[in-house]
Amino acid sequence: SLGVCSLFHPEAGNLWGVFDLHTHSSCSLSLSDIEISQSCIPKPIDQVAKEVGLFPDEVELYGQTKAKIQLSVLKRLQNQPDGKYVVVTGITPTPLGEGKSTTTVGLVQALGAHLRQNVFACVRQPSQGPTFGIKGGAAGGGYCQVVPMEEFNLHLTGDIHAITAANNLVAAAIDARIFHELTQSDQALYNRLVPSVNGVRKFSDIQIRRLQKLGINKTDPMALTKEEVNAFVRLDIDPGTITWQRVLDTNDRFLRKITIGQSAQFDITVSSEIMAVLALADGLDDMKKRFGRMVVASSKKGIPVTADDLGVTGALAVLMKDAVKPNLMQTLEGTPVFVHAGPFANIAHGNSSVLADKIALKLVGKDGFVVTEAGFGADIGMEKFFNIKCRYSGLRPHVVVLVATVRALKMHGGGPAVTAGVPLPKEYTEENLQLVAKGCSNLTKQIQNARMFGVPVVVAVNAFKTDTKAELALVVQHAKEAGAFDAVECTHWAEGGKGALALARAVQRASQAPSNFKFLYNVELPVVDKIRLIAQQVYGARDIELLPEAQEKVALYTKQGFGNLPICMAKTHLSLSHDPEQKGAPTGFVLPIRDIRASVGAGFLYPLVGTMSTMPGLPTRPCFYDIDLDPVSGAVNGLF
Amino acid sequence: SLGVCSLFHPEAGNLWGVFDLHTHSSCSLSLSDIEISQSCIPKPIDQVAKEVGLFPDEVELYGQTKAKIQLSVLKRLQNQPDGKYVVVTGITPTPLGEGKSTTTVGLVQALGAHLRQNVFACVRQPSQGPTFGIKGGAAGGGYCQVVPMEEFNLHLTGDIHAITAANNLVAAAIDARIFHELTQSDQALYNRLVPSVNGVRKFSDIQIRRLQKLGINKTDPMALTKEEVNAFVRLDIDPGTITWQRVLDTNDRFLRKITIGQSAQFDITVSSEIMAVLALADGLDDMKKRFGRMVVASSKKGIPVTADDLGVTGALAVLMKDAVKPNLMQTLEGTPVFVHAGPFANIAHGNSSVLADKIALKLVGKDGFVVTEAGFGADIGMEKFFNIKCRYSGLRPHVVVLVATVRALKMHGGGPAVTAGVPLPKEYTEENLQLVAKGCSNLTKQIQNARMFGVPVVVAVNAFKTDTKAELALVVQHAKEAGAFDAVECTHWAEGGKGALALARAVQRASQAPSNFKFLYNVELPVVDKIRLIAQQVYGARDIELLPEAQEKVALYTKQGFGNLPICMAKTHLSLSHDPEQKGAPTGFVLPIRDIRASVGAGFLYPLVGTMSTMPGLPTRPCFYDIDLDPVSGAVNGLF
Repeated sequence: SLGVCSLFHPEAGNLWGVFDLHTHSSCSLSLSDIEISQSCIPKPIDQVAKEVGLFPDEVELYGQTKAKIQLSVLKRLQNQPDGKYVVVTGITPTPLGEGKSTTTVGLVQALGAHLRQNVFACVRQPSQGPTFGIKGGAAGGGYCQVVPMEEFNLHLTGDIHAITAANNLVAAAIDARIFHELTQSDQALYNRLVPSVNGVRKFSDIQIRRLQKLGINKTDPMALTKEEVNAFVRLDIDPGTITWQRVLDTNDRFLRKITIGQSAQFDITVSSEIMAVLALADGLDDMKKRFGRMVVASSKKGIPVTADDLGVTGALAVLMKDAVKPNLMQTLEGTPVFVHAGPFANIAHGNSSVLADKIALKLVGKDGFVVTEAGFGADIGMEKFFNIKCRYSGLRPHVVVLVATVRALKMHGGGPAVTAGVPLPKEYTEENLQLVAKGCSNLTKQIQNARMFGVPVVVAVNAFKTDTKAELALVVQHAKEAGAFDAVECTHWAEGGKGALALARAVQRASQAPSNFKFLYNVELPVVDKIRLIAQQVYGARDIELLPEAQEKVALYTKQGFGNLPICMAKTHLSLSHDPEQKGAPTGFVLPIRDIRASVGAGFLYPLVGTMSTMPGLPTRPCFYDIDLDPVSGAVNGLF
Repeated sequence: SLGVCSLFHPEAGNLWGVFDLHTHSSCSLSLSDIEISQSCIPKPIDQVAKEVGLFPDEVELYGQTKAKIQLSVLKRLQNQPDGKYVVVTGITPTPLGEGKSTTTVGLVQALGAHLRQNVFACVRQPSQGPTFGIKGGAAGGGYCQVVPMEEFNLHLTGDIHAITAANNLVAAAIDARIFHELTQSDQALYNRLVPSVNGVRKFSDIQIRRLQKLGINKTDPMALTKEEVNAFVRLDIDPGTITWQRVLDTNDRFLRKITIGQSAQFDITVSSEIMAVLALADGLDDMKKRFGRMVVASSKKGIPVTADDLGVTGALAVLMKDAVKPNLMQTLEGTPVFVHAGPFANIAHGNSSVLADKIALKLVGKDGFVVTEAGFGADIGMEKFFNIKCRYSGLRPHVVVLVATVRALKMHGGGPAVTAGVPLPKEYTEENLQLVAKGCSNLTKQIQNARMFGVPVVVAVNAFKTDTKAELALVVQHAKEAGAFDAVECTHWAEGGKGALALARAVQRASQAPSNFKFLYNVELPVVDKIRLIAQQVYGARDIELLPEAQEKVALYTKQGFGNLPICMAKTHLSLSHDPEQKGAPTGFVLPIRDIRASVGAGFLYPLVGTMSTMPGLPTRPCFYDIDLDPVSGAVNGLF
């Protein structure tokens, strides 16, 4: 045997007694998410690792509840067939979110702890900064959580901190290089860049790569001509072209607009291209290569300047050597979870890591299930899951789970605005079939979007306690009419995996149905054509309009050889269109493309549709007022 | 038994065969530090933990080579007598450093692996930022290293990253608070700070503390008068008084002078007061209280504004809940090491954590040795070790080990400048007894400095291969004449613990000698008197001179009630005086005090003698050019 267990959770039933008390007690929860999380005693994580078939030397424990998994497991299991690959996405949400994470966890709890299938959830690591701003974790909620949720929501195993360090090393290297080039002659730069150490002068490996890129096939530092020395030592960065920002994992609006050296602001760490690379890399070597390809600016002659040109690729890989290993945790019902990478869903692709999915697919084996979540609604996260993540990973999805709520559909049907922190208007707490029916236009369009890629769609109607039977039934009926493979009500938030059993069974059936996955576009198409295809086919736009900056970038990136990268749209998630006020399934609009940027290392171009905030702020009463540590027990209180 | 082993390293002899090959081969090393580090296979860290008497549930593994130790061990061992407490310090060093870390490791290797004593080294965690700038690790060197050195020098277990997050949360909270106070009425602020949640309005615990500080003994939010609401909601921070900076653990000179919100620069993370608190806290509760007391600014009325006023204390404790646990690692010869906290040695006290020392002293037991290192020379790190760290910890040292080198003494004797990256002038590589003899003035003064505190001093003459027998003998003779308990030559860098056996035996004898530890000053003395005492007694100054800013701060801090804090001098480590060019043991100078700042949470005032850089830059050829990760083996190459 390859070390893959046929059943992951032999002891789940015994260990989760505390939990069971809660699930059976009530559907209207009176406990907060952190109270529920802390009311259960997680299995030791080495036991979870053993249950999923990992060998002890493949597991690096980080305390009792978290572990990193060595990438070597991929090689050990290379001949193992992959399991079924399920992606969870949603209709266009309200600002409150409609429960994709909760559904992801609920589904794996149902499949794993109840139906006894081999199963893995693969989720994104949340940004720590917002944890101290506004309440709302990313670990799921209610009786569907990744536990311990405070570990999940805080440092985890330090991956995001490693990204901060790596990102800011690049930023410092850019400014330092400009500074030193400004103040030194070619010869002085060369003497410092290629110093004589104990009488020996030689190029480092990364310098040899730069020479090769420049077409200089020499390895003796004394053999370079003056012109070659000049080309080698001068990156000649055009300060106006720098696209690399510094980052911090803190909500800090005052870092949005400052001038440091040649860059103009701080972003939040998870928006770094380093994060997007982590999420898309399929191994150490691939990660290093992507780091080296990251373009940080252009030279004054218009040549892309890369991290490799700065000499920093190896150091980035060293900083990220542990972050590249997926983090093993578990759900409230003891099923295994990989938490790994959390790129933005607008300026990046918003999906957890390729590596976690690949390892999980091997671990669950042919008949098992890996449930992975795509950020935002299906028009964004799912489209990027297919066109970017699956394109790079080579993985092919079997089922799309589309999460819908009565609340969001009422909003799409013309209900009043839904705002965080403000009580819901009565339209949302009383039966209103008309609003639901009208709002199903969004559901229909998102089902079509999924089907466009040739994958069967199961609609999960995430039930709230104020939803009526008739409302829920209406959504199920609409979903089926719109072409869903199946549509089911779910009550996993209040009931745990038990509440997602119907969903789990529907997913099992759907995974046996024919799937004919195809990409929406060929990457070799011109940039504008790829953007237009997404806008028209997925969003329902009549056409796109490129503003002058975007037109310039199309020309620049095409000239620089990046025209054949996939497209990663940076668009609001609150509408299928560019206008968050346009609910339902708008048509006939022209999608404006304000600008286009490139994450060449991660491997995509990202057109900006409107403005994107890459640094949140803190409200008047940040939720840190409620957060405390019990100095005796060490318990975290008040976090969500 | 309390679970303390009488002998820590029963298997050291067996496991370190690889290492033995190297120690016996040669005194002139041809391997780099990282090559030596990687040539040995460390014991699994859980085995080290078991050997030192830790119980499995007190150990949180972080992979195979690092572990965090739960603070609960202190309670379990509270009745265990402490071991002998040894502090390693040095004479005034050259810019290259004279081997304090190497001697710390060499001494514990000699005591532990060779003399079979229970022993622990307690060392600081180095800043990661400089690792990518200029070569030179902090893990020791040669055959005296903490291993694996790449783990030691990089993220370790994320403590410094946690400090970055905590520090920057405070900074964001300051600017956010000023922003929201500027834009909202008292009532709007109050409604947001004490919101009605499901119809219930109540103060959080931290808000109750603020009310109490304001003398408002009410708990019902509706009962406050308008004046009380005003006092409660308005911190009324005077932007000109903000002393809190943002931090990053990256060498980035461009962050030195920027304007963000109301603060004016970024510092490197290890300079944060959060780090100083971590190093001085003696438990969770104490750490929380110190966080709460941290003063970030004054109000427009001159009242100190604290982290507690900002409402952020609990969140800081939560962010630091794992960082507060010491990190267990090991030396090349398998003896245990705690790596914990690394505050600056100028603007902070430059010593590793009180908690690590306390736990280690219990673990080694009555006859064991804990060797801890103080930053910079004895005039700075040791003085602060005694007057600040020992004052707060209540621990009393038994032996001072003072590291001296022929190289540094020659410099003090009038030798030419020693500069990093430039070959040493011949004065340093050829015998020159006259320079050594003249330079011993510095050694004499530093021995006197240690003896002033009533603790026996053992001088460790850290031998380099170019030192002659006569030179080394001269230093030993001078040290003994100057009042050292003993003085011995050491060759541990080239030979490992074996090379520090004479030192170990001298330390054993000294630890049995009478010790009559006393502080240099009473904290109740006026601020100026305390500064003058240090300047005159320790540095040899004739007097001090307070510049106007410093005079104002003396008045301010005394008025604010912080006048009775200990003093933490921020002075160059390259001279006993304020002028790095003045070598030997200068006298008669007047020490200028440019300004004074307060780390009220950590618990000291820090007078600035000259300017201190709190953010390093990157050189033209940062050492990241040499750093690489082998994508197949995962090995780190080229780091030192």
